[in-house]
Amino acid sequence: MKLNIALLAGDGIGPEVINEAVKVSDAIAKKFNHEIVWTPALTGACAIDAVGVPYPDETHEICMKADAVLFGAIGHPKYDNDPSAPVRPEQGLLLMRKKLGLFANVRPTFTFPSLIDNSPLKRERIEGTDLVFLRELTGGIYFGEKGRKDGGETAFDNCVYTRAEVQRLAKKGFELAMTRSKKLCCVDKANVLETSRLWRETVQAMEKDYPEVTVSYEFVDAVAMRLVQWPNSYDVLITENLFGDILTDEASVISGSMGLMPSASVGEHTSLYEPIHGSYPQATGLNIANPLATVLSAAMMFEDAFKLTAEAEAIRSVVNKSLEQGIVTEDLAVKGAKTYSTSEVGDWLVANL
Amino acid sequence: MKLNIALLAGDGIGPEVINEAVKVSDAIAKKFNHEIVWTPALTGACAIDAVGVPYPDETHEICMKADAVLFGAIGHPKYDNDPSAPVRPEQGLLLMRKKLGLFANVRPTFTFPSLIDNSPLKRERIEGTDLVFLRELTGGIYFGEKGRKDGGETAFDNCVYTRAEVQRLAKKGFELAMTRSKKLCCVDKANVLETSRLWRETVQAMEKDYPEVTVSYEFVDAVAMRLVQWPNSYDVLITENLFGDILTDEASVISGSMGLMPSASVGEHTSLYEPIHGSYPQATGLNIANPLATVLSAAMMFEDAFKLTAEAEAIRSVVNKSLEQGIVTEDLAVKGAKTYSTSEVGDWLVANL
Ligand SMILES: CC(C)[C@H](C(=O)O)[C@@H](O)C(=O)O
Ligand SMILES: CC(C)[C@H](C(=O)O)[C@@H](O)C(=O)O
Repeated sequence: MKLNIALLAGDGIGPEVINEAVKVSDAIAKKFNHEIVWTPALTGACAIDAVGVPYPDETHEICMKADAVLFGAIGHPKYDNDPSAPVRPEQGLLLMRKKLGLFANVRPTFTFPSLIDNSPLKRERIEGTDLVFLRELTGGIYFGEKGRKDGGETAFDNCVYTRAEVQRLAKKGFELAMTRSKKLCCVDKANVLETSRLWRETVQAMEKDYPEVTVSYEFVDAVAMRLVQWPNSYDVLITENLFGDILTDEASVISGSMGLMPSASVGEHTSLYEPIHGSYPQATGLNIANPLATVLSAAMMFEDAFKLTAEAEAIRSVVNKSLEQGIVTEDLAVKGAKTYSTSEVGDWLVANL
Repeated sequence: MKLNIALLAGDGIGPEVINEAVKVSDAIAKKFNHEIVWTPALTGACAIDAVGVPYPDETHEICMKADAVLFGAIGHPKYDNDPSAPVRPEQGLLLMRKKLGLFANVRPTFTFPSLIDNSPLKRERIEGTDLVFLRELTGGIYFGEKGRKDGGETAFDNCVYTRAEVQRLAKKGFELAMTRSKKLCCVDKANVLETSRLWRETVQAMEKDYPEVTVSYEFVDAVAMRLVQWPNSYDVLITENLFGDILTDEASVISGSMGLMPSASVGEHTSLYEPIHGSYPQATGLNIANPLATVLSAAMMFEDAFKLTAEAEAIRSVVNKSLEQGIVTEDLAVKGAKTYSTSEVGDWLVANL
């Protein structure tokens, strides 16, 4: 099979972790007789530096033509203290989501047995955690009208959702639940927000089409609590953009495996795969960043974008082996144990596939 | 001193826990030579049942005339599955906040040494946690224009803030930080929201008036993570209404002492004191609910509303004693140990003041 993949390394440690994912993907392709054509493109701070905008049209065209996008991370400290700067890397991210129609962000949270003690939570609270958030990614308060009035003294952000937007996200949620334990939780704030009431009534109306799925409706504040108390009580959760931003990040730290969590953003055109961690500027160029979340994002890509399940499983299994054998970067190393560099971890994975 | 207190017991376990707080407050008043005049009033589901609205005008007048309001909890299961019912207990809460001008919700999260092992988090992560959220309570997306368009197919909620609203909340934050460790964290989403950019620029402009306070600015998703990872790294946090709703609930479960957390809502007129827990319908009438959060809310009231610090300390110290000696309701009891009823705990507190 020929796989056309757009490669958006981005900023900070992005290029380093992407490099290892490419090595592993190429090795898998060789093993399973596929040909991967990687097309690199600029996004984020490096795109601003090079061409003045964070998501250039050329990058967009490359993404649209590709079968999948593998993405590293974006962000640079020079933009951190000025969220109102006219051009910022994050704008590239939002524009990319919107223009690629990436309306569903798929964020799994699961535990690796060998990492469970890294969690801030007690072992008995997280054992067995295996949940997936579907976060709506192209609507809500992120993309509604925003601005100032009264000479700058009043600011507003409008949160808007249409029934169709809720339906397409919820449909993915029901479908995903059907492939798992058939439990779906709709997270909203329907006791206060009209958009949440639209979410709830839309999902309620879809229940009859998926009679096997048990749906629960929980308020976002209650979920923020229960995620810390009993994360393993959840399976598939669907929610709107802003709630998803907050809750998926909260969920990511409970498993103790945050540095390993992959994600996918799927929608109308090409799907995008990326680690959930950021550009980690302090580690840039040091060859110490953990490449496993990006390698596991590539596994997600093989499975979801190309339906190559055996290939995905092969990647996951070698990652598990590396964890068990302690072939890990310093963030995961047991005190006193030898640590490996970013590229050494990648080399080991390739050699042990 | 004569203390005029409006007593809003509310629904569910509200009346039971309020009853114990009244007993303890009366005993303290007697001991310190104060006279308390309690004026009961209806709010929540019980007000809907009695007079058709969740926050009757009469209740509002009683609150406005009082020196402080002591509040139990509201909410009833019959409203739970229909967030679009025309009259709901929560509307009473929002109306009460708005009409009483309760613009700042003060939500401390701290640990009780004897309860630390109840936390889902590991001991070393939470030891020393002592933070306070100031949540803006009368603005933002809760109170902006909301509704439907396109024949009900599109829903919207408008989030609006004025500079003056941010200033009055932030002022309380800076002042509170000055009485504590002089660290203030402004939580926003300034990389996406215009209202957050207004928050950030307003707080930045106030920094010069409090040169001793160190201010940090963090995105809401990052705070949702760090609260679980290093809760003891925070001191005073200020944030807007919806972020505060989510984060204060998240924070409440990390200490393991959720059933004990008091809160205050302060603002333009009378201040209100209430436990952070809800109306816990399943326990209603069983005399098993934990009254300590309400008793500690009364302590907060003595200290903040009446500046009666010795009285507040006396309450806190007897609560600590009850915890140490295991005179607690079933939710806090060590496995196998004797448990006490709601009223027995109250009686014990009164007897040991
Ligand atoms: C950088 C920011 C705009 C972005 C978001 O809020 O969506 C990030 O937090 C994320 O979750 O991918
Ligand atoms: C009941 C609800 C309207 C309320 C809120 O969202 O403010 C509650 O969650 C709270 O935090 O007091």
